[in-house]
Amino acid sequence: MEYYSNEIQKLIDNFASLPGIGRKSAQRLAFHVLNMPKEKVAEFSEALTSARENIRYCSKCFTLTDSEVCPICANKSRDHKTIMVVETVRDLAAYEKTGKYDGVYHVLHGAISPMLGIGPNDIKLKELMVRLSEEDINEVIVATNSSLEGETTAMYISKLIKPTGIKVTRIASGVPVGGDLEYIDEITLLRALEGRTELG
Amino acid sequence: MEYYSNEIQKLIDNFASLPGIGRKSAQRLAFHVLNMPKEKVAEFSEALTSARENIRYCSKCFTLTDSEVCPICANKSRDHKTIMVVETVRDLAAYEKTGKYDGVYHVLHGAISPMLGIGPNDIKLKELMVRLSEEDINEVIVATNSSLEGETTAMYISKLIKPTGIKVTRIASGVPVGGDLEYIDEITLLRALEGRTELG
Repeated sequence: MEYYSNEIQKLIDNFASLPGIGRKSAQRLAFHVLNMPKEKVAEFSEALTSARENIRYCSKCFTLTDSEVCPICANKSRDHKTIMVVETVRDLAAYEKTGKYDGVYHVLHGAISPMLGIGPNDIKLKELMVRLSEEDINEVIVATNSSLEGETTAMYISKLIKPTGIKVTRIASGVPVGGDLEYIDEITLLRALEGRTELG
Repeated sequence: MEYYSNEIQKLIDNFASLPGIGRKSAQRLAFHVLNMPKEKVAEFSEALTSARENIRYCSKCFTLTDSEVCPICANKSRDHKTIMVVETVRDLAAYEKTGKYDGVYHVLHGAISPMLGIGPNDIKLKELMVRLSEEDINEVIVATNSSLEGETTAMYISKLIKPTGIKVTRIASGVPVGGDLEYIDEITLLRALEGRTELG
């Protein structure tokens, strides 16, 4: 392996260790970095360590943030009586991008998966229950994925919360907007049928 | 854009600025980094700056290296009278991986492309001619790509070197090993026909 010098090889290895980046892409990225302005590389390098050093969980909703409480939980103009429960920070971001949800969130950091050995104690469920007992909450919207794990988690959460009397809802499952029925799986089609609503 | 904190956003932006990495992948990579052990992140960060700071062109063949002369040019057991001319360092690496070439290289860092406004003076051609006049060279193997630009460059190099009396050869163009004739373009098929060799 004498064809790349040590430093380049190390950089390639680092890129290749990231998910979804193979050897070829890692090479391409490493060579791109070697041609980037030095300041840009320094900035990238700084962004890596600084994000890793300073990012932690929001003490309320467990999203990733660089302050004690995340901007969403700190925002007084949002509806703090509605909590949307999501699996990951990316799911939170997806709903935030719609710009139409003004409640707050709770990030589970995973979903219950007996297959992968992930139980209720491995995700931020206890923390959700603590919030429900301490805060004044009207509704919990369960927005876990529409996968086996997501559904299992939704059911579990619903059973856990029901006794407290707090309203628990689940986001609708059905045909995606713009979706072509022909290409949609049967379970989704059945869900869409079950969830049908009356036309005005 | 309040849904990601500043530090995460900066990291995502940095990843997204790399070639072939879109917003979604950049997000995925950034979150992966946040879950990596701190030492791994520090190592990655260090690899970025250190590669960018210390890597330069080999003073002989212009490949990227962290020393004055690259390991290949410094290797006395290689054949220094045969130079393979390639467009990029990755092409050099591709030939090195075969393990069967024991000459040295010359990296052009590009190919002549009137379309993109890249002329003979924009690639390391002058440097090749200097080497040919200063060193004792038997053969120059032109291994530029089999693209329009690569072929143009090969022709140009051949015309430039012919008067010096040094042997100039071109790597063969044809059907890739394992290739299915049915799926190969006509020009390649014609090249393969032209380049046919007699069977023992």
